[in-house]
Amino acid sequence: MLSKSQIKLIKSLTQKKFRNKHELFTVEGIKGVMEFINSDFELVSLFTTGKTFGLPKDKLNLIEEKELKKISSLKTPQEVLAVFKIPSPAAFKPEGLILALDGVRDPGNLGTIIRLCDWFGIENLICSGDTVDCYNPKVVQASMGSLTRVKINYLDLAEFLGQQKDLPVYGTLLEGDNIYTSALPNSAVIVMGNEANGISEEIISLLKNKVTIPQFGKVQTTESLNVATATSIVLSEFRRNLSTEK
Amino acid sequence: MLSKSQIKLIKSLTQKKFRNKHELFTVEGIKGVMEFINSDFELVSLFTTGKTFGLPKDKLNLIEEKELKKISSLKTPQEVLAVFKIPSPAAFKPEGLILALDGVRDPGNLGTIIRLCDWFGIENLICSGDTVDCYNPKVVQASMGSLTRVKINYLDLAEFLGQQKDLPVYGTLLEGDNIYTSALPNSAVIVMGNEANGISEEIISLLKNKVTIPQFGKVQTTESLNVATATSIVLSEFRRNLSTEK
Repeated sequence: MLSKSQIKLIKSLTQKKFRNKHELFTVEGIKGVMEFINSDFELVSLFTTGKTFGLPKDKLNLIEEKELKKISSLKTPQEVLAVFKIPSPAAFKPEGLILALDGVRDPGNLGTIIRLCDWFGIENLICSGDTVDCYNPKVVQASMGSLTRVKINYLDLAEFLGQQKDLPVYGTLLEGDNIYTSALPNSAVIVMGNEANGISEEIISLLKNKVTIPQFGKVQTTESLNVATATSIVLSEFRRNLSTEK
Repeated sequence: MLSKSQIKLIKSLTQKKFRNKHELFTVEGIKGVMEFINSDFELVSLFTTGKTFGLPKDKLNLIEEKELKKISSLKTPQEVLAVFKIPSPAAFKPEGLILALDGVRDPGNLGTIIRLCDWFGIENLICSGDTVDCYNPKVVQASMGSLTRVKINYLDLAEFLGQQKDLPVYGTLLEGDNIYTSALPNSAVIVMGNEANGISEEIISLLKNKVTIPQFGKVQTTESLNVATATSIVLSEFRRNLSTEK
């Protein structure tokens, strides 16, 4: 049985300001919850409507389906909801391949990009302050557990790139060098831009290298590729060297 | 002013069976509507709440915002809604690069894949019968006009691949040859599978070539890449030869 204040607290976590205030976020669905439990994230509380799966018993609460509906952010709640602590931002060394997002707003896109980082072994993702919060329930849902393996830092992107001396900075734009014929390094910062406006002017002025994914269609489309599909191609291009170099 | 029967007809077009019965589908938003008007698609009727933009006047109907809300499939209707005729499936020659989808169910994924075909100059997309309908309003929305430039055929995929003699058939699976080190031809059929289950057993048995996108993360993820991001990488790999070959 959930108290009114518990319901109010958990519901409030759909909003960034309350996630930040309480330093808590939610994960739904047994698969995702298990991935977070088996990671460094700290479990705070756990709710299920019946099946206990193999969930740790000390923090487990059996609740009614109508209660789950009240605290779930999903249209169709998935039996299990867990509350985890938001960790302090991990310190990160600027080394290897780092992905940087400049104002990505759509939670589904950020979740997909986190999954791509996980797949391509990108350990550090940095996000401008106006990028959607990675603990947004839709981001957590779309990232499918990859959020447990990718370190994410929100920072002033212009300041970070301006100070960046160790790694070359690449940006993906509609006009740039053909990415397929560019020699791409194994260590770099790669910047991807906002869904509608691409990379901001301020950040463009800080790019040392501009690359583009060429169009092959007969008609040049007015729309760019979606940022998640563009990111998948760019990460694939940076990583494919590891497979093909002798 | 819309009649009750007009409202009923247009609303019914969110469902496949009524789209097929009436051979009609809807497009919303001025940008998308203009792309369809400037294509081979046949405009049937056009509705706007005020701004007439540069829309053709003969089929234009001024309606109230509350009327638009009734016929729109969007949460936030976008001022313009058009009804177009569904064309007869275009005959297609099995040549060049053809993408084939085996049971892709999510409208957003199909829309994104249609955009990718447009970008990479894939003129023919073939879909198994259980792939989501390309005139589903969410697919139309996500494809952003690319639907006007990519020919889509729904057919019996097993039958098509079984009879295929001209083109080599490639499938993307979790286990296959490393796509980065495979010699990929400029003409082929490339099969992508369902979101949850990948390519079906029946279709796998018809594949001549199996390729995979390698994982680079330290931890092997249990989840595959999303089908739209996997498709973007696969099409990029098939097309990049055109940029890099001397």
